[in-house]
Amino acid sequence: MTPVPEIDHLIGLIARLPGLGPRSARRVTLALLRDPRGKLLPLARAMESAAMSVRTCTSCGNLDVEDPCHICRDPTRANDLICVVESVNDLWALERAGAHHGLYMVLGGVLSALRGIGPADLNVEPLFERLRAGSVREVILALGATVDGATTMYWLQEKLHPYDVRVSRVAQGVPMGGTLDVLDDGTLAAAVSARRPM
Amino acid sequence: MTPVPEIDHLIGLIARLPGLGPRSARRVTLALLRDPRGKLLPLARAMESAAMSVRTCTSCGNLDVEDPCHICRDPTRANDLICVVESVNDLWALERAGAHHGLYMVLGGVLSALRGIGPADLNVEPLFERLRAGSVREVILALGATVDGATTMYWLQEKLHPYDVRVSRVAQGVPMGGTLDVLDDGTLAAAVSARRPM
Repeated sequence: MTPVPEIDHLIGLIARLPGLGPRSARRVTLALLRDPRGKLLPLARAMESAAMSVRTCTSCGNLDVEDPCHICRDPTRANDLICVVESVNDLWALERAGAHHGLYMVLGGVLSALRGIGPADLNVEPLFERLRAGSVREVILALGATVDGATTMYWLQEKLHPYDVRVSRVAQGVPMGGTLDVLDDGTLAAAVSARRPM
Repeated sequence: MTPVPEIDHLIGLIARLPGLGPRSARRVTLALLRDPRGKLLPLARAMESAAMSVRTCTSCGNLDVEDPCHICRDPTRANDLICVVESVNDLWALERAGAHHGLYMVLGGVLSALRGIGPADLNVEPLFERLRAGSVREVILALGATVDGATTMYWLQEKLHPYDVRVSRVAQGVPMGGTLDVLDDGTLAAAVSARRPM
């Protein structure tokens, strides 16, 4: 793209990030190169430091500089309430919302025939270890309302059946602040069928 | 955002890049952290290497690991033909297109009353040094067809007037592959008034 290998290499790596392409990678690279000491170097150092220190929590799959992560180590959280999510991004979203005060199980994906993701690819064993230890009261399935997410929730429900544990899934319905006319048929049908007395 | 300072810091730096925000920064950070050795570390190293080696060419404003840059040092290029562009991104675009075989002058911006960018903020002195040395035959103004771009081209035209040099500007008209019905009125008017005999 440019005849400068150092710049080309950097653009190529940035262009492979999710949501970016060659055009936006050039723009990002240029913005960084305009201020090598003030922007580029601090970012490089932050990345190197994160690469060296951040690890995956072996009990829940969260990312942290310590293993077990700060959530698994927090004595104030309900350790008999496990919320199953697809990715760390979902965990972060629930944490930002303050929506869950128990522990997590990050699957690292959902079952997908199309993308060839089977049960063996999901990080689910730590959950069953806890279930066998009898320390879990409720498992909340918080996967996306997609075909793959629903498939994975049904599969998990089956697998959880032999254990003495409550299994629930997050509610579907009208999003907060949302108007009904922009919602898809599936959401509307789910919202009506899950209606509650006022 | 997350209670892990290392990850938070990285998300914060990435969110400040052009075209990215907190949401896309979280997605990018997560994709990088999923493969620390394979993705995050190589990117950190490429950034550090670029920050250390890439510099601004003192004669044209291009970015390269050498100063003068590879374009200014290329003996096969017409050194009496200078193309004035706003940014290195524009230079890269012209180079990719193989549209210009002379040298460049990267202004690093255009005059803008709104953003407080005046003549002193533009990297234009190396051009006038060359003009005073009498080594320039033609200056091509290749700035964007915006109000600020046009203002800058008129200002440069005035400044170039005392020198014995041809001043031209890139043509405006219908883009290659474009249909007329999607073009704005200004472009259509410019394309008609600059019509050429067939």
